[in-house]
Amino acid sequence: MARRSRALRRSPQTDTASLPSPYIQRELPFFDVLNEEQLQRMEAQVDWLLEDVGIAFRDDPAALEIWCAAGVAPTGEHGDLIKADAKWIRDLCAKAPGQFTQLARNPARNVTIGGENQVFAPIYGAPFVRDLAGGRRYGNMADFEKLVKLAYMHPNLHHTGLVITEPTDIPVSKRHLDMVFAHITLSDKPHLGAITEKSRAQDSVDMAEILFGRARMDAEAAQGNICIMGNVNTNSPLLVDKVASEAIQVYSARGQGMIVTPFILTGAMGPVSTAASVAQAVAEAMICCAFAQLVRPGAPFVMGNFLSSMSLKSGAPTFGMPEPVLSNYVIGQMARRVGLPLRCGGSLTASKIEDAQAAYESADSMHSTMLAGSNFTLHAAGWLEGGLATGFEKLIMDADRLGSYQKLGGLGLETDENAFARDAYGEVQPGGHFLGSGHTMRNYQTAFYEPKLSDSENVESWEEGGSKDMRQRAFERWNDMLNQYETPPIDIATKEELTAYVARRKEELPDAWY
Amino acid sequence: MARRSRALRRSPQTDTASLPSPYIQRELPFFDVLNEEQLQRMEAQVDWLLEDVGIAFRDDPAALEIWCAAGVAPTGEHGDLIKADAKWIRDLCAKAPGQFTQLARNPARNVTIGGENQVFAPIYGAPFVRDLAGGRRYGNMADFEKLVKLAYMHPNLHHTGLVITEPTDIPVSKRHLDMVFAHITLSDKPHLGAITEKSRAQDSVDMAEILFGRARMDAEAAQGNICIMGNVNTNSPLLVDKVASEAIQVYSARGQGMIVTPFILTGAMGPVSTAASVAQAVAEAMICCAFAQLVRPGAPFVMGNFLSSMSLKSGAPTFGMPEPVLSNYVIGQMARRVGLPLRCGGSLTASKIEDAQAAYESADSMHSTMLAGSNFTLHAAGWLEGGLATGFEKLIMDADRLGSYQKLGGLGLETDENAFARDAYGEVQPGGHFLGSGHTMRNYQTAFYEPKLSDSENVESWEEGGSKDMRQRAFERWNDMLNQYETPPIDIATKEELTAYVARRKEELPDAWY
Repeated sequence: MARRSRALRRSPQTDTASLPSPYIQRELPFFDVLNEEQLQRMEAQVDWLLEDVGIAFRDDPAALEIWCAAGVAPTGEHGDLIKADAKWIRDLCAKAPGQFTQLARNPARNVTIGGENQVFAPIYGAPFVRDLAGGRRYGNMADFEKLVKLAYMHPNLHHTGLVITEPTDIPVSKRHLDMVFAHITLSDKPHLGAITEKSRAQDSVDMAEILFGRARMDAEAAQGNICIMGNVNTNSPLLVDKVASEAIQVYSARGQGMIVTPFILTGAMGPVSTAASVAQAVAEAMICCAFAQLVRPGAPFVMGNFLSSMSLKSGAPTFGMPEPVLSNYVIGQMARRVGLPLRCGGSLTASKIEDAQAAYESADSMHSTMLAGSNFTLHAAGWLEGGLATGFEKLIMDADRLGSYQKLGGLGLETDENAFARDAYGEVQPGGHFLGSGHTMRNYQTAFYEPKLSDSENVESWEEGGSKDMRQRAFERWNDMLNQYETPPIDIATKEELTAYVARRKEELPDAWY
Repeated sequence: MARRSRALRRSPQTDTASLPSPYIQRELPFFDVLNEEQLQRMEAQVDWLLEDVGIAFRDDPAALEIWCAAGVAPTGEHGDLIKADAKWIRDLCAKAPGQFTQLARNPARNVTIGGENQVFAPIYGAPFVRDLAGGRRYGNMADFEKLVKLAYMHPNLHHTGLVITEPTDIPVSKRHLDMVFAHITLSDKPHLGAITEKSRAQDSVDMAEILFGRARMDAEAAQGNICIMGNVNTNSPLLVDKVASEAIQVYSARGQGMIVTPFILTGAMGPVSTAASVAQAVAEAMICCAFAQLVRPGAPFVMGNFLSSMSLKSGAPTFGMPEPVLSNYVIGQMARRVGLPLRCGGSLTASKIEDAQAAYESADSMHSTMLAGSNFTLHAAGWLEGGLATGFEKLIMDADRLGSYQKLGGLGLETDENAFARDAYGEVQPGGHFLGSGHTMRNYQTAFYEPKLSDSENVESWEEGGSKDMRQRAFERWNDMLNQYETPPIDIATKEELTAYVARRKEELPDAWY
């Protein structure tokens, strides 16, 4: 019963943002697909990439200095190739914590990332939005704010991410300020900071410092807790560009979190093989984790993996296919072996709209993401069109399904005395029914996940209700949610300080659109 | 490479029914969710149900005589309650084979059921059909024949089942003859026989005997191979009605296959608990397996499980939810422990149409069905509306996704030398790409599952193509497939004998519509 009551506390079934839904504490076992021999072969490949092939840290002399100071001399054509002893890299990675807590400005929404904990965040980085009324269009700040509000309100999203759509009406040079400000003020859930340029990463950390206070931020960092985190891709294959290495230097130096995610379209940014591409992703993430530990030993770090397959007809990336599904299971096991928190998968699809294709692909992708034990899942809701568009309906539809994974993962199978219901068999005859049994009466209210968007009524009732498909129901739902939105309270002085910071930085920065 | 070539042979990506696609030989590990202590608690509950609660065999004196002859005296209010020593029941179940082969009339389509093999069959039992042109209507024989043709043609369906829709224009008393005849003549894949009444079961076995020959059928049965199989539900909770016990007597007596499937809407036909409902299903299936072994030791038997959850709003069954998903994982492990082949899950949904709800629910249901190791999966394609309707588009959409599970399960992760692609790293610079590498050239054609119905093109191409959703593409596809259908050849004398059998039996039987 202890497990049940905790899981229920973790899985509120209402919209109100006032209920706690911080994250999933997993009871379900992980799905391990590799045997010991396969694991060792994978690890031997990782070690070979680290030692014999090497990974370049490009256009960032400061990063190369850090490597040199640690005794690793860059080599290669550009003088930036890092080849390092694999055991030393593993030892460095072992300095990173297996799990850590990201503070939210509302402490009830703190999340723990790593171990048996799983955190869901929405889509990141789409330049377009799509909804049933407005169709497909470039995202703007108004869309951005609506989407942050929805992510804040939805009980099955534990974290609001950052670039829930690109606010393309704001200059690229300044939009990170508006995005971070919106996440802080429209939501009280944890969120990410910017990484696209070093000073933008610094602005994000500085705004977190205003929100939490410098002394507290540093004290929490000393305890291994973070106030902000950045998510950056490597430039696969085997290249860490300046964007990534500078972001690590900014976030890790302050003891804040870094997610480094090799994005590998198998056959393009990695060999046309799941095993080779996953091993490459692990090597790329590990070298970045080792680098972060050189910047600050113990810096919280998440091993990312984003692997997609390819259409043979066009070379376009495909999602929810067996190869990336398998890669989720494989990277889950590899990350646990290295001892690092994992980001992988999401509710991914190549479909342009919220049709059956979108749902089949998203479900297979997310089911494997969940079972694999992804500790921080970006793109858990809202992803359309290979990540080019954020779907308003998709966000709400995916998030509704996340509640199912939350229950599946959070509970596992209960096998206590109440779960076996022996008393009920004394009340029910062969061929009878359990509807009125005492056990049913005691347990039915918590027995089932109750989705908001699945229609399980008979066809007549559904037709009387207008024969609405899930997409139409999702459209109505997110509009209802926005109508009910209430801004979470924030300390006025803090908000003023943040407002002033954003204004000052916008003055200082030029308008740039790329 | 041996594994790859076998998997490719098993997973043809074309429509033509001439290619072999007999079944999946699994390389992926099973997903086990219970620890040893939980397994023992589950088994203790099963034993308690068998020994202390009992299961009734109702309205079938012949069944009770079989139990009496084995030394078990029925008890209870109706004198039909079987309580038996659990170890004895387990020993009887151990007489059933862990796997067996069902012969198809085309030997290239034989399937092996049990062990690491997985066989997919379409929806069973829906009175309605739905397609984009014709809408929702009662199924008839013309629909039935179209659906059998599609199941025959689709490379990802290994078995055509039986009641792919109810041909409601044929009297209930006679339709089993037309259905079995259609499966035999329009397809050369294996299929099921009827079970709704004893003589209909006997007609099914007799028609299989005509098709395969009496001597061969008996010789194969002596080897543990079957020519036909029946699928029947218990009347949960804890009741085996005459339909089930008579079907077992007909099929098992001839050494043919039986699937016995407790259908439990948790909270109604079982306690409102996944653990209790799964344990009950195991007990019900085991008592039926033991009964089949009393009828004929060694009779091939499949342990079935069909568990659904419930909407708290209406009491309607719900599908693809965390409780039935978890039940698939649990029953998979329980069945392997008992040593019996398993039927569970399918591509299940409560949605009325092929929208995102249908796909999300079907995918979560089928993903867990696959990972759990269901050896024979009925309802793997075509299920809509809680099983009330067969969707033509749904059949083709689900079957397209089955190819993904086929590759996932059939391959597992390859970790041989080719899979690690070390030679490719000599050709590619950091930040470069693998598109033209020798490894990619050698492997890309077999690297990815290529779905037929997923559109992965960019939004412009998709719009130029008419902005078709997956449902529209599926409609076009099944119509194209039917246009390409060719009847598989059949021996003329055999077909004449079957035709005469059906005609004679139709003369003998009255017209009955219920």
